Amino acid sequence: MSSRTIQVSPFDLVVFGGTGDLAARKLLPALYHRDLAGQIPHDARIIGVSRRPLSREDYGRFVCEALDQFVKPADKNAEAIERFIARADYQPADASKEAGWPELAKLLSSGADRVRAFYFAVAPELFAPLSQRIQQFGLVTPGSRVVLEKPLGKDGESARAVNDAVAEVFNESQVFRIDHYLGKETVQNLMALRFANRLFEPVWNSTHIDHVQITVAEDIGVGDRGGYYDTSGAMRDMLQNHIMQLLCLTAMEPPDAFEADAVRDEKLKVLKALKRIDDRNADQMTVRAQYRAGSVGGKPATGYLDDLGREDSQTETFVAIRAEIANWRWAGVPFFLRTGKRLAKRTSEIVVNFRPISHNIFDQMAGRVSQNRLILRLQPDEGVTLEVTIKDPGPGGMRLRRIPLDMSFAETFGVSNPDAYERLLMDVIRGNQTLFMRADEVAAAWRWVDPIHAAWIHNDQRIHTYPAGSWGPSASVALIERDGRTWFEDAE
Amino acid sequence: MSSRTIQVSPFDLVVFGGTGDLAARKLLPALYHRDLAGQIPHDARIIGVSRRPLSREDYGRFVCEALDQFVKPADKNAEAIERFIARADYQPADASKEAGWPELAKLLSSGADRVRAFYFAVAPELFAPLSQRIQQFGLVTPGSRVVLEKPLGKDGESARAVNDAVAEVFNESQVFRIDHYLGKETVQNLMALRFANRLFEPVWNSTHIDHVQITVAEDIGVGDRGGYYDTSGAMRDMLQNHIMQLLCLTAMEPPDAFEADAVRDEKLKVLKALKRIDDRNADQMTVRAQYRAGSVGGKPATGYLDDLGREDSQTETFVAIRAEIANWRWAGVPFFLRTGKRLAKRTSEIVVNFRPISHNIFDQMAGRVSQNRLILRLQPDEGVTLEVTIKDPGPGGMRLRRIPLDMSFAETFGVSNPDAYERLLMDVIRGNQTLFMRADEVAAAWRWVDPIHAAWIHNDQRIHTYPAGSWGPSASVALIERDGRTWFEDAE
Repeated sequence: MSSRTIQVSPFDLVVFGGTGDLAARKLLPALYHRDLAGQIPHDARIIGVSRRPLSREDYGRFVCEALDQFVKPADKNAEAIERFIARADYQPADASKEAGWPELAKLLSSGADRVRAFYFAVAPELFAPLSQRIQQFGLVTPGSRVVLEKPLGKDGESARAVNDAVAEVFNESQVFRIDHYLGKETVQNLMALRFANRLFEPVWNSTHIDHVQITVAEDIGVGDRGGYYDTSGAMRDMLQNHIMQLLCLTAMEPPDAFEADAVRDEKLKVLKALKRIDDRNADQMTVRAQYRAGSVGGKPATGYLDDLGREDSQTETFVAIRAEIANWRWAGVPFFLRTGKRLAKRTSEIVVNFRPISHNIFDQMAGRVSQNRLILRLQPDEGVTLEVTIKDPGPGGMRLRRIPLDMSFAETFGVSNPDAYERLLMDVIRGNQTLFMRADEVAAAWRWVDPIHAAWIHNDQRIHTYPAGSWGPSASVALIERDGRTWFEDAE
Repeated sequence: MSSRTIQVSPFDLVVFGGTGDLAARKLLPALYHRDLAGQIPHDARIIGVSRRPLSREDYGRFVCEALDQFVKPADKNAEAIERFIARADYQPADASKEAGWPELAKLLSSGADRVRAFYFAVAPELFAPLSQRIQQFGLVTPGSRVVLEKPLGKDGESARAVNDAVAEVFNESQVFRIDHYLGKETVQNLMALRFANRLFEPVWNSTHIDHVQITVAEDIGVGDRGGYYDTSGAMRDMLQNHIMQLLCLTAMEPPDAFEADAVRDEKLKVLKALKRIDDRNADQMTVRAQYRAGSVGGKPATGYLDDLGREDSQTETFVAIRAEIANWRWAGVPFFLRTGKRLAKRTSEIVVNFRPISHNIFDQMAGRVSQNRLILRLQPDEGVTLEVTIKDPGPGGMRLRRIPLDMSFAETFGVSNPDAYERLLMDVIRGNQTLFMRADEVAAAWRWVDPIHAAWIHNDQRIHTYPAGSWGPSASVALIERDGRTWFEDAE
């Protein structure tokens, strides 16, 4: 155990959807890494639950295969893997019937005084019935909590239905709505940069910031998720959660403490201050689009309708929005948000563009002076880059040059960043909700998104197309250029 | 010629003291480097003048030896050296008699329409008589200028006498008072950082800056310069010029243009706004000291009196001052200045210490949050480092860590920094006085320094001692610690 790792309390983690894709790819590897680091007490248990009739030994093999496939070779340690598998138990059960639940209750009864976490790694339709079964079998202890994976509904109404159903069984202080973007090092570094440095907060406002861009770009298409995706779309699948959360953390006022409700109160204020976009202005402030055939990374890529196997769809695979926050700090500063599938590359980033200097004293010599930018990359390579202008070395005049100051964490510290789920799972066990969404935040986000969706339908707003492998439709470029700004990747 | 090098106009550079140490070590190598870079026109001439009865060929050998000794092997190029030596001419002459001056006039007559620069690399007592001879022999053309090396007098009165004598022959616009610190890349980068970035100017004031430290430390002693040094001391030799110039550039208001008089007007305002230190408060605000025997770099080092060969001296080899600038931007922000010989290492730096964050939201988790610092190193390795606080990577709480963001120029650009004299000599030829001191600046600096000297004598202020190889006397530590601050090297 590293000297800097503090063990969490003993816990039982019950993973519904324990044989699913998320469990195999993310949850089990993340728990293994924390175990390897010595953060998990020796008697903590991981209990997989799903419909599949597996034995404890079968599940051990599932866990073993998951680690084999999704843990880097360098992190594989036979002894640690054996110890980890010994933590894993399994109970077949599902929400639709009572079978298996008494056995689950019995299994858990030996840890009644521990932290007990129910992880709902299943479709949201099951959140309500699962909560009911948990209640029916008396599984909720004072130390219990529940983790909800997205999507939390497809609009305000359905999200409220889910939240209400869960709220009948769990207090809000027990509910952990997970958005793995918030577990990323870069996002937490945004907090550190803003609130642990004297330098940034004084210039973090409309006086000094020109505009902000938040991009979550995927290069993959919908693949075999087309059926689900077509009922959702880029706005609900990515913008309403990931991008709006990043927006909140970028724009919020300093909370008085780095604690769950203090932070979430400030995020909520941002969501409430977003200027409404609806029938009147959606065509000016938003762009929706669908990818058509093109090429990604030099290889031909099919279009969305082909991927879907349909003639027609009104679902957007790309959305760009010009958002504004109507408060003292941000009035007049546009936040350009965009997300899409089959874009030029996989990248998620927040780009804070500072205003130009107010007066160029180097006018004759240097021409236009580059603007400062702070670039927070969430993926693929997490890191923060501050771009500053310095003098080009040499005995001539005052030539200026913009250079990147790189705070890439892996490089600086010689360590690899932990996966977001590692942190977030440990926060669940620790009972720290700071990086999880509160119900009123989810509701407020939908209150902003729903009128945009409604406007698209009401106005029959055009669905643009863009070739797979591009940066979206030209309408997205037009959206930002009308404002005299340029998307980050074009501004390079 | 590099595509980014712009040739200067044809010129004749007359170096009085042409066979001296400064010419050999600095001026000739700097000119050679500019020649190598293609910045010097083919017909430009360098004319050495001194008492020594050398021929042109003799001087060619002197130049050749100087380059051999003081140019890095990698920069030596036989063809370029030969070309450079061909530019060099020589004329024996001195200010005390007329011999040689008619020949110098004849030599220069063939370049009457060129830029003509007289470089006074001689003792300041000769500045007046040299100027008179130059006038007597009609050598001042419209394109003429004169370069004055420090020291410019030993107090306000003697400096004014020198400036007045030079002013009888040259206009102020023709006078280039050189301080090679101002030619350093880092100093010019201070201007670029402050005035070409939106980020820094808004926090460059007493609201956000806690205090500033300026240190010019030498590890060498007085060596065989003791005779001269004992009539001068650290205050006159280093503080009144180098440190006060750095103070001005750090503290000045943004000039409206990066032009000579705009910049010098702002520097002058800083000098005028310095709070007076005199009989009343010199013992609180200043420390003077002399090195005694000690060890430097593991080797025993003699004390100042031994170096001097005397029983007693009242000359300081170290001075530390707590300065304050009485204006809106800086009221209440102490500027700690210090310079000395035989200190722990050779280093010159400006350290801008920002205030702590106004409120620590990470209180429970992170303890005290480090303050931001901007460190401008002038030597030995030029560079700028911005210290910021980021999150320590890892899935635990919000541990914070201060990391240095390095803007070291050589590293960033893969080039070596030009010597300060290279830039300054080219500025002389270009007629750009931005990085040179105006007469009223020199006078204002003395007006602040003279009362401190007078107070030391009037109050018989104690001369502390410090062991060679230390960071000065404990009284210097006490000076800053009384204010609740700590010298940079101790704060590491």
